[in-house]
Amino acid sequence: MNRFYFPTLNYSDSEIIVEGDEAHHIISVMRKSTGEMIEVSDGEGQIIECEIISIKKKQVFCRVLNRFHLDKEKPQFKFLVPVLKNPNRFEFMLEKLTELGVHEIIPFVSENSMRVSDKNSRWKKVLISAMKQSHVDFLPNLHLLSNFNEIITQINLSNSLIFHGDVEGEHPGELRLQKKISETESIYLAIGPEGDFSEEEKKILRSINSIPVKLSNNRLRSETAAIALMTLIKNLKPEASQ
Amino acid sequence: MNRFYFPTLNYSDSEIIVEGDEAHHIISVMRKSTGEMIEVSDGEGQIIECEIISIKKKQVFCRVLNRFHLDKEKPQFKFLVPVLKNPNRFEFMLEKLTELGVHEIIPFVSENSMRVSDKNSRWKKVLISAMKQSHVDFLPNLHLLSNFNEIITQINLSNSLIFHGDVEGEHPGELRLQKKISETESIYLAIGPEGDFSEEEKKILRSINSIPVKLSNNRLRSETAAIALMTLIKNLKPEASQ
Repeated sequence: MNRFYFPTLNYSDSEIIVEGDEAHHIISVMRKSTGEMIEVSDGEGQIIECEIISIKKKQVFCRVLNRFHLDKEKPQFKFLVPVLKNPNRFEFMLEKLTELGVHEIIPFVSENSMRVSDKNSRWKKVLISAMKQSHVDFLPNLHLLSNFNEIITQINLSNSLIFHGDVEGEHPGELRLQKKISETESIYLAIGPEGDFSEEEKKILRSINSIPVKLSNNRLRSETAAIALMTLIKNLKPEASQ
Repeated sequence: MNRFYFPTLNYSDSEIIVEGDEAHHIISVMRKSTGEMIEVSDGEGQIIECEIISIKKKQVFCRVLNRFHLDKEKPQFKFLVPVLKNPNRFEFMLEKLTELGVHEIIPFVSENSMRVSDKNSRWKKVLISAMKQSHVDFLPNLHLLSNFNEIITQINLSNSLIFHGDVEGEHPGELRLQKKISETESIYLAIGPEGDFSEEEKKILRSINSIPVKLSNNRLRSETAAIALMTLIKNLKPEASQ
Protein backbone atom coordinates (compact mmCIF):
# COMPACT_ATOMS: atom_id res chain seq x y z
CA MET A 1 0.00 0.00 0.00
CA ASN A 2 1.40 3.46 -0.82
CA ARG A 3 2.25 5.62 2.14
CA PHE A 4 1.78 9.36 2.34
CA TYR A 5 2.85 11.99 4.83
CA PHE A 6 0.53 14.44 6.48
CA PRO A 7 1.92 15.87 9.71
CA THR A 8 -1.23 17.55 11.00
CA LEU A 9 -3.44 14.48 11.43
CA ASN A 10 -6.24 14.83 13.91
CA TYR A 11 -6.02 11.68 15.96
CA SER A 12 -9.67 11.14 16.85
CA ASP A 13 -11.36 11.65 13.51
CA SER A 14 -13.03 8.83 11.64
CA GLU A 15 -12.44 10.74 8.44
CA ILE A 16 -9.33 12.66 7.45
CA ILE A 17 -8.77 15.27 4.78
CA VAL A 18 -5.34 15.43 3.18
CA GLU A 19 -4.62 18.82 1.61
CA GLY A 20 -1.87 20.80 -0.06
CA ASP A 21 1.25 19.27 -1.62
CA GLU A 22 0.54 15.77 -0.38
CA ALA A 23 -3.00 15.85 -1.81
CA HIS A 24 -1.46 16.87 -5.14
CA HIS A 25 0.97 13.96 -4.81
CA ILE A 26 -1.86 11.50 -4.13
CA ILE A 27 -4.04 12.76 -6.98
CA SER A 28 -1.70 13.85 -9.77
CA VAL A 29 1.53 11.92 -9.21
CA MET A 30 0.36 8.60 -7.79
CA ARG A 31 -3.01 8.89 -9.58
CA LYS A 32 -5.05 7.39 -6.77
CA SER A 33 -8.78 7.33 -7.14
CA THR A 34 -11.90 6.84 -5.03
CA GLY A 35 -12.12 3.41 -3.44
CA GLU A 36 -8.36 2.87 -3.22
CA MET A 37 -6.59 2.17 0.07
CA ILE A 38 -3.68 4.29 1.23
CA GLU A 39 -1.61 4.72 4.38
CA VAL A 40 -1.10 8.13 5.88
CA SER A 41 1.67 8.77 8.39
CA ASP A 42 2.20 11.84 10.56
CA GLY A 43 5.92 11.08 10.81
CA GLU A 44 5.58 10.72 14.59
CA GLY A 45 4.61 7.09 14.81
CA GLN A 46 0.94 7.39 13.90
CA ILE A 47 -0.09 5.38 10.84
CA ILE A 48 -3.61 5.47 9.47
CA GLU A 49 -4.92 2.98 6.93
CA CYS A 50 -7.77 4.50 5.04
CA GLU A 51 -9.93 4.37 1.98
CA ILE A 52 -10.28 7.31 -0.36
CA ILE A 53 -13.95 8.25 -0.40
CA SER A 54 -13.81 11.38 -2.51
CA ILE A 55 -11.36 13.65 -4.25
CA LYS A 56 -11.77 17.35 -4.84
CA LYS A 57 -9.40 19.73 -6.56
CA LYS A 58 -6.81 19.84 -3.80
CA GLN A 59 -8.37 17.71 -1.11
CA VAL A 60 -8.48 13.97 -0.55
CA PHE A 61 -11.21 12.72 1.79
CA CYS A 62 -10.48 9.39 3.44
CA ARG A 63 -12.37 7.05 5.75
CA VAL A 64 -10.18 5.72 8.58
CA LEU A 65 -10.13 1.93 8.75
CA ASN A 66 -7.19 1.22 11.02
CA ARG A 67 -5.03 3.34 13.22
CA PHE A 68 -1.69 2.43 14.77
CA HIS A 69 0.36 4.42 17.18
CA LEU A 70 3.93 3.33 17.68
CA ASP A 71 5.97 4.29 20.72
CA LYS A 72 9.13 6.27 20.24
CA GLU A 73 11.98 3.86 19.66
CA LYS A 74 14.77 3.46 22.17
CA PRO A 75 17.65 4.16 21.91
CA GLN A 76 17.34 7.16 19.64
CA PHE A 77 20.00 7.29 16.91
CA LYS A 78 21.33 10.82 16.43
CA PHE A 79 23.76 11.39 13.60
CA LEU A 80 26.18 14.30 13.36
CA VAL A 81 26.63 14.73 9.62
CA PRO A 82 29.22 17.02 8.03
CA VAL A 83 27.74 19.10 5.22
CA LEU A 84 29.56 18.05 2.05
CA LYS A 85 30.76 20.13 -0.86
CA ASN A 86 28.77 18.02 -3.31
CA PRO A 87 25.03 18.45 -2.57
CA ASN A 88 24.08 15.19 -4.33
CA ARG A 89 26.37 13.19 -2.09
CA PHE A 90 25.08 14.99 0.97
CA GLU A 91 21.43 14.41 0.08
CA PHE A 92 22.20 10.81 -0.72
CA MET A 93 23.63 10.45 2.77
CA LEU A 94 20.49 11.97 4.29
CA GLU A 95 18.31 9.60 2.28
CA LYS A 96 20.29 6.52 3.31
CA LEU A 97 20.40 7.43 7.00
CA THR A 98 16.62 7.90 6.94
CA GLU A 99 16.10 4.51 5.29
CA LEU A 100 18.32 2.93 7.93
CA GLY A 101 16.22 4.39 10.75
CA VAL A 102 18.07 7.44 12.08
CA HIS A 103 15.97 9.56 14.49
CA GLU A 104 17.84 12.86 14.49
CA ILE A 105 20.09 14.45 11.93
CA ILE A 106 22.44 17.12 13.17
CA PRO A 107 24.30 18.81 10.29
CA PHE A 108 27.55 20.47 11.24
CA VAL A 109 30.41 22.54 9.93
CA SER A 110 33.84 22.04 11.40
CA GLU A 111 37.43 23.11 10.92
CA ASN A 112 37.97 21.21 7.69
CA SER A 113 34.50 21.85 6.26
CA MET A 114 33.99 23.61 2.99
CA ARG A 115 32.00 26.82 3.07
CA VAL A 116 28.40 25.59 3.15
CA SER A 117 24.97 26.96 3.86
CA ASP A 118 21.94 25.55 5.63
CA LYS A 119 19.39 24.19 3.17
CA ASN A 120 17.04 22.99 5.87
CA SER A 121 13.80 23.00 3.90
CA ARG A 122 15.37 21.31 0.89
CA TRP A 123 16.99 18.65 3.06
CA LYS A 124 13.73 18.07 4.91
CA LYS A 125 12.08 17.15 1.61
CA VAL A 126 14.74 14.48 1.10
CA LEU A 127 13.94 13.02 4.51
CA ILE A 128 10.19 13.01 3.88
CA SER A 129 10.62 11.30 0.54
CA ALA A 130 12.90 8.61 1.99
CA MET A 131 10.57 8.11 4.95
CA LYS A 132 7.61 7.45 2.65
CA GLN A 133 9.60 5.26 0.28
CA SER A 134 10.98 3.02 3.00
CA HIS A 135 7.89 3.05 5.24
CA VAL A 136 9.86 4.55 8.10
CA ASP A 137 7.45 5.44 10.91
CA PHE A 138 9.26 8.45 12.34
CA LEU A 139 10.41 11.43 10.32
CA PRO A 140 13.97 12.21 11.45
CA ASN A 141 14.22 15.44 13.37
CA LEU A 142 16.46 17.68 11.27
CA HIS A 143 18.43 20.22 13.30
CA LEU A 144 19.60 23.57 12.01
CA LEU A 145 23.19 23.68 10.78
CA SER A 146 25.60 24.43 13.57
CA ASN A 147 29.18 24.23 14.65
CA PHE A 148 30.70 20.89 15.63
CA ASN A 149 32.12 22.15 18.92
CA GLU A 150 28.81 23.70 19.98
CA ILE A 151 26.88 20.52 19.26
CA ILE A 152 29.27 18.44 21.35
CA THR A 153 28.79 20.62 24.43
CA GLN A 154 25.03 20.01 24.28
CA ILE A 155 25.19 16.21 24.42
CA ASN A 156 23.93 14.68 27.65
CA LEU A 157 26.76 12.22 28.24
CA SER A 158 25.22 10.35 31.16
CA ASN A 159 22.66 8.36 29.17
CA SER A 160 24.38 8.20 25.77
CA LEU A 161 26.89 6.23 23.81
CA ILE A 162 28.93 8.03 21.16
CA PHE A 163 30.73 6.50 18.18
CA HIS A 164 32.72 8.07 15.37
CA GLY A 165 34.39 6.71 12.26
CA ASP A 166 38.18 6.63 12.59
CA VAL A 167 40.75 4.86 10.40
CA GLU A 168 42.72 4.10 13.55
CA GLY A 169 39.70 2.95 15.50
CA GLU A 170 38.56 -0.44 16.74
CA HIS A 171 37.21 -3.26 14.63
CA PRO A 172 33.40 -3.25 14.88
CA GLY A 173 33.54 -6.77 16.33
CA GLU A 174 35.82 -5.63 19.17
CA LEU A 175 33.99 -2.60 20.50
CA ARG A 176 34.02 -2.17 24.25
CA LEU A 177 30.99 -0.24 25.42
CA GLN A 178 30.64 1.42 28.81
CA LYS A 179 26.95 0.54 29.00
CA LYS A 180 24.45 -1.76 27.33
CA ILE A 181 22.79 -0.46 24.20
CA SER A 182 19.38 -1.33 25.66
CA GLU A 183 20.05 0.88 28.70
CA THR A 184 20.96 3.88 26.59
CA GLU A 185 18.62 6.75 25.75
CA SER A 186 20.63 8.08 22.83
CA ILE A 187 23.31 6.81 20.51
CA TYR A 188 25.28 9.58 18.84
CA LEU A 189 27.17 8.80 15.66
CA ALA A 190 29.59 11.11 13.87
CA ILE A 191 31.83 11.07 10.87
CA GLY A 192 34.28 13.70 9.71
CA PRO A 193 34.00 15.94 6.65
CA GLU A 194 36.17 15.59 3.55
CA GLY A 195 39.62 16.05 5.07
CA ASP A 196 38.46 14.41 8.33
CA PHE A 197 38.16 15.86 11.81
CA SER A 198 40.96 18.21 12.87
CA GLU A 199 43.36 17.17 15.64
CA GLU A 200 41.55 19.51 18.01
CA GLU A 201 38.19 17.93 17.16
CA LYS A 202 39.61 14.44 17.65
CA LYS A 203 40.80 15.55 21.08
CA ILE A 204 37.28 16.73 21.89
CA LEU A 205 35.85 13.38 20.76
CA ARG A 206 38.29 11.55 23.03
CA SER A 207 37.38 13.82 25.94
CA ILE A 208 33.71 12.78 25.70
CA ASN A 209 34.63 9.07 25.41
CA SER A 210 33.44 8.75 21.84
CA ILE A 211 34.37 5.29 20.62
CA PRO A 212 36.46 5.30 17.41
CA VAL A 213 35.27 2.67 14.93
CA LYS A 214 37.37 1.42 12.01
CA LEU A 215 34.92 1.10 9.14
CA SER A 216 37.14 -0.22 6.35
CA ASN A 217 40.75 -0.68 5.31
CA ASN A 218 40.17 1.74 2.46
CA ARG A 219 39.60 5.47 2.57
CA LEU A 220 35.86 5.90 2.51
CA ARG A 221 34.08 8.97 1.24
CA SER A 222 32.14 10.73 4.00
CA GLU A 223 28.74 9.52 2.86
CA THR A 224 29.97 5.93 2.61
CA ALA A 225 31.45 6.14 6.10
CA ALA A 226 28.14 7.46 7.44
CA ILE A 227 26.14 4.60 5.93
CA ALA A 228 28.66 2.01 7.15
CA LEU A 229 28.75 3.41 10.70
CA MET A 230 24.95 3.58 10.93
CA THR A 231 24.62 0.01 9.61
CA LEU A 232 27.20 -1.43 11.99
CA ILE A 233 26.04 0.28 15.17
CA LYS A 234 22.33 -0.19 14.44
CA ASN A 235 23.00 -3.90 14.12
CA LEU A 236 24.85 -4.35 17.40
CA LYS A 237 22.83 -6.57 19.72
CA PRO A 238 20.78 -4.64 22.31
CA GLU A 239 22.56 -6.41 25.14
CA ALA A 240 26.00 -5.63 23.73
CA SER A 241 28.39 -4.20 26.32
CA GLN A 242 31.99 -4.90 27.25
CA MET B 1 49.77 11.35 -2.67
CA ASN B 2 47.40 11.15 -5.66
CA ARG B 3 46.90 7.73 -7.12
CA PHE B 4 46.48 6.94 -10.80
CA TYR B 5 45.53 3.82 -12.70
CA PHE B 6 47.56 2.32 -15.49
CA PRO B 7 46.81 -1.34 -16.08
CA THR B 8 49.70 -2.17 -18.39
CA LEU B 9 52.61 -1.51 -16.04
CA ASN B 10 55.81 -3.29 -16.85
CA TYR B 11 56.92 -4.71 -13.54
CA SER B 12 60.68 -4.61 -13.94
CA ASP B 13 61.23 -1.13 -15.33
CA SER B 14 62.97 1.57 -13.35
CA GLU B 15 61.07 4.12 -15.39
CA ILE B 16 57.43 4.00 -16.47
CA ILE B 17 55.55 5.91 -19.11
CA VAL B 18 51.87 6.64 -18.48
CA GLU B 19 49.97 7.31 -21.68
CA GLY B 20 46.45 7.89 -23.00
CA ASP B 21 43.50 8.97 -20.85
CA GLU B 22 45.33 8.63 -17.58
CA ALA B 23 48.22 10.79 -18.81
CA HIS B 24 45.64 13.41 -19.74
CA HIS B 25 44.17 13.08 -16.26
CA ILE B 26 47.59 13.56 -14.63
CA ILE B 27 48.52 16.55 -16.79
CA SER B 28 45.32 18.44 -17.49
CA VAL B 29 42.94 17.53 -14.68
CA MET B 30 45.22 17.07 -11.69
CA ARG B 31 47.79 19.50 -13.14
CA LYS B 32 50.83 17.58 -11.95
CA SER B 33 54.22 18.81 -13.00
CA THR B 34 57.80 17.61 -13.15
CA GLY B 35 59.30 16.77 -9.77
CA GLU B 36 55.99 15.81 -8.16
CA MET B 37 55.40 12.41 -6.59
CA ILE B 38 52.49 10.22 -7.63
CA GLU B 39 51.32 6.66 -7.09
CA VAL B 40 50.44 4.46 -10.01
CA SER B 41 48.37 1.30 -9.54
CA ASP B 42 47.75 -1.46 -12.04
CA GLY B 43 44.54 -2.43 -10.24
CA GLU B 44 45.97 -5.87 -9.55
CA GLY B 45 47.81 -5.17 -6.33
CA GLN B 46 50.91 -3.53 -7.75
CA ILE B 47 51.50 0.03 -6.50
CA ILE B 48 54.38 2.12 -7.75
CA GLU B 49 55.52 5.31 -6.04
CA CYS B 50 57.30 7.49 -8.53
CA GLU B 51 58.51 10.95 -9.39
CA ILE B 52 57.47 12.69 -12.57
CA ILE B 53 60.66 13.40 -14.52
CA SER B 54 59.18 14.77 -17.71
CA ILE B 55 55.89 15.45 -19.39
CA LYS B 56 55.21 15.39 -23.09
CA LYS B 57 51.96 16.02 -24.91
CA LYS B 58 50.25 12.77 -23.94
CA GLN B 59 52.97 10.97 -22.02
CA VAL B 60 54.11 11.19 -18.42
CA PHE B 61 57.61 9.82 -17.73
CA CYS B 62 58.19 8.70 -14.16
CA ARG B 63 61.16 7.39 -12.19
CA VAL B 64 60.22 4.44 -9.98
CA LEU B 65 61.13 4.98 -6.32
CA ASN B 66 59.16 2.28 -4.53
CA ARG B 67 57.26 -0.74 -5.67
CA PHE B 68 54.77 -2.81 -3.68
CA HIS B 69 53.05 -5.97 -4.70
CA LEU B 70 50.11 -7.05 -2.60
CA ASP B 71 48.84 -10.61 -2.59
CA LYS B 72 45.28 -11.25 -3.66
CA GLU B 73 43.03 -10.92 -0.65
CA LYS B 74 41.23 -13.89 0.80
CA PRO B 75 38.32 -14.44 0.91
CA GLN B 76 37.27 -12.77 -2.31
CA PHE B 77 34.02 -10.80 -2.02
CA LYS B 78 31.80 -11.32 -5.06
CA PHE B 79 28.63 -9.28 -5.28
CA LEU B 80 25.61 -10.18 -7.42
CA VAL B 81 24.06 -6.78 -8.13
CA PRO B 82 20.68 -6.30 -9.78
CA VAL B 83 20.79 -3.66 -12.51
CA LEU B 84 18.48 -0.86 -11.37
CA LYS B 85 16.07 1.26 -13.36
CA ASN B 86 17.75 4.45 -12.18
CA PRO B 87 21.32 4.55 -13.53
CA ASN B 88 22.50 7.05 -10.90
CA ARG B 89 21.46 4.74 -8.10
CA PHE B 90 23.08 1.78 -9.81
CA GLU B 91 26.36 3.59 -10.37
CA PHE B 92 26.28 4.85 -6.83
CA MET B 93 26.00 1.24 -5.69
CA LEU B 94 28.99 0.25 -7.82
CA GLU B 95 31.02 3.12 -6.41
CA LYS B 96 30.20 2.25 -2.80
CA LEU B 97 30.89 -1.46 -3.20
CA THR B 98 34.27 -0.60 -4.69
CA GLU B 99 35.12 1.72 -1.81
CA LEU B 100 34.15 -1.04 0.62
CA GLY B 101 36.52 -3.49 -1.03
CA VAL B 102 34.47 -5.76 -3.26
CA HIS B 103 36.56 -7.97 -5.59
CA GLU B 104 34.04 -9.01 -8.22
CA ILE B 105 30.86 -7.39 -9.41
CA ILE B 106 28.37 -9.64 -11.16
CA PRO B 107 25.46 -7.64 -12.59
CA PHE B 108 22.29 -9.60 -13.16
CA VAL B 109 18.79 -9.42 -14.49
CA SER B 110 16.11 -11.53 -12.88
CA GLU B 111 12.39 -12.13 -12.97
CA ASN B 112 11.44 -8.81 -11.37
CA SER B 113 14.13 -6.75 -13.10
CA MET B 114 13.28 -3.82 -15.31
CA ARG B 115 14.40 -4.03 -18.92
CA VAL B 116 18.06 -3.04 -18.73
CA SER B 117 21.13 -3.15 -20.91
CA ASP B 118 24.77 -3.86 -20.21
CA LYS B 119 26.80 -0.66 -19.92
CA ASN B 120 30.01 -2.47 -19.11
CA SER B 121 32.49 0.16 -20.24
CA ARG B 122 30.61 2.98 -18.56
CA TRP B 123 30.32 1.00 -15.31
CA LYS B 124 34.00 0.13 -15.43
CA LYS B 125 34.84 3.83 -15.39
CA VAL B 126 32.86 4.19 -12.18
CA LEU B 127 34.89 1.39 -10.61
CA ILE B 128 38.21 2.88 -11.71
CA SER B 129 37.31 6.27 -10.36
CA ALA B 130 36.22 4.85 -7.00
CA MET B 131 39.33 2.66 -6.82
CA LYS B 132 41.61 5.66 -7.28
CA GLN B 133 39.62 7.88 -4.91
CA SER B 134 39.62 5.37 -2.08
CA HIS B 135 43.10 3.93 -2.70
CA VAL B 136 41.69 0.49 -3.24
CA ASP B 137 44.48 -1.81 -4.43
CA PHE B 138 42.47 -4.14 -6.64
CA LEU B 139 40.13 -3.04 -9.39
CA PRO B 140 36.95 -5.09 -9.02
CA ASN B 141 36.50 -7.59 -11.80
CA LEU B 142 33.30 -6.52 -13.58
CA HIS B 143 31.43 -9.40 -15.21
CA LEU B 144 29.19 -9.07 -18.22
CA LEU B 145 25.49 -8.75 -17.49
CA SER B 146 23.83 -12.12 -17.21
CA ASN B 147 20.84 -13.96 -15.90
CA PHE B 148 20.47 -14.62 -12.18
CA ASN B 149 19.77 -18.32 -12.60
CA GLU B 150 22.77 -18.84 -14.86
CA ILE B 151 25.13 -17.13 -12.45
CA ILE B 152 23.97 -19.30 -9.57
CA THR B 153 24.74 -22.51 -11.41
CA GLN B 154 28.34 -21.38 -11.90
CA ILE B 155 29.14 -20.86 -8.21
CA ASN B 156 31.56 -23.35 -6.71
CA LEU B 157 29.69 -24.12 -3.53
CA SER B 158 32.36 -26.19 -1.81
CA ASN B 159 34.65 -23.32 -0.85
CA SER B 160 32.17 -20.47 -0.65
CA LEU B 161 29.75 -18.82 1.71
CA ILE B 162 26.70 -17.09 0.26
CA PHE B 163 24.57 -14.39 1.86
CA HIS B 164 21.57 -12.48 0.60
CA GLY B 165 19.48 -9.64 1.98
CA ASP B 166 16.07 -10.83 3.14
CA VAL B 167 13.49 -9.03 5.28
CA GLU B 168 12.69 -12.35 6.92
CA GLY B 169 16.34 -13.29 7.41
CA GLU B 170 18.50 -13.58 10.48
CA HIS B 171 19.86 -10.72 12.55
CA PRO B 172 23.47 -10.07 11.51
CA GLY B 173 24.58 -10.83 15.06
CA GLU B 174 22.98 -14.28 14.96
CA LEU B 175 24.32 -15.71 11.71
CA ARG B 176 25.20 -19.38 11.73
CA LEU B 177 27.91 -20.11 9.20
CA GLN B 178 28.76 -23.57 7.93
CA LYS B 179 32.46 -22.74 7.76
CA LYS B 180 34.88 -20.14 9.07
CA ILE B 181 35.26 -16.97 7.01
CA SER B 182 39.04 -17.41 7.07
CA GLU B 183 38.72 -20.87 5.50
CA THR B 184 36.60 -19.63 2.64
CA GLU B 185 37.85 -18.81 -0.84
CA SER B 186 34.87 -16.75 -1.90
CA ILE B 187 32.04 -14.94 -0.23
CA TYR B 188 29.09 -14.31 -2.52
CA LEU B 189 26.65 -11.57 -1.63
CA ALA B 190 23.36 -10.85 -3.36
CA ILE B 191 20.44 -8.50 -3.05
CA GLY B 192 17.21 -8.47 -5.00
CA PRO B 193 16.11 -5.93 -7.59
CA GLU B 194 13.31 -3.40 -7.02
CA GLY B 195 10.41 -5.76 -6.33
CA ASP B 196 12.77 -8.29 -4.69
CA PHE B 197 13.66 -11.82 -5.75
CA SER B 198 10.80 -13.90 -7.09
CA GLU B 199 9.58 -16.91 -5.12
CA GLU B 200 11.36 -19.18 -7.57
CA GLU B 201 14.63 -17.31 -7.10
CA LYS B 202 14.27 -17.46 -3.32
CA LYS B 203 13.84 -21.20 -3.64
CA ILE B 204 17.06 -21.37 -5.64
CA LEU B 205 18.87 -19.33 -2.99
CA ARG B 206 17.66 -21.74 -0.30
CA SER B 207 18.77 -24.70 -2.37
CA ILE B 208 22.37 -23.44 -2.42
CA ASN B 209 22.31 -22.70 1.33
CA SER B 210 22.50 -18.96 0.89
CA ILE B 211 22.14 -17.35 4.31
CA PRO B 212 19.30 -14.80 4.50
CA VAL B 213 20.35 -11.66 6.39
CA LYS B 214 17.89 -9.15 7.81
CA LEU B 215 19.44 -5.77 7.10
CA SER B 216 16.93 -3.40 8.64
CA ASN B 217 13.38 -3.16 9.96
CA ASN B 218 12.56 -0.75 7.14
CA ARG B 219 12.24 -1.42 3.43
CA LEU B 220 15.62 -0.55 2.00
CA ARG B 221 16.21 0.51 -1.56
CA SER B 222 18.35 -1.99 -3.45
CA GLU B 223 21.49 0.14 -3.37
CA THR B 224 21.12 0.73 0.36
CA ALA B 225 20.66 -2.97 0.98
CA ALA B 226 23.81 -3.71 -1.04
CA ILE B 227 25.92 -1.28 0.97
CA ALA B 228 24.52 -2.56 4.27
CA LEU B 229 25.08 -6.23 3.38
CA MET B 230 28.65 -5.58 2.20
CA THR B 231 29.44 -3.57 5.35
CA LEU B 232 28.02 -6.19 7.70
CA ILE B 233 29.58 -9.27 6.13
CA LYS B 234 32.95 -7.62 5.47
CA ASN B 235 33.10 -6.78 9.16
CA LEU B 236 32.40 -10.27 10.47
CA LYS B 237 35.43 -11.58 12.31
CA PRO B 238 37.61 -13.93 10.22
CA GLU B 239 37.15 -16.74 12.72
CA ALA B 240 33.35 -16.34 12.75
CA SER B 241 31.53 -19.65 12.33
CA GLN B 242 28.57 -21.17 14.09
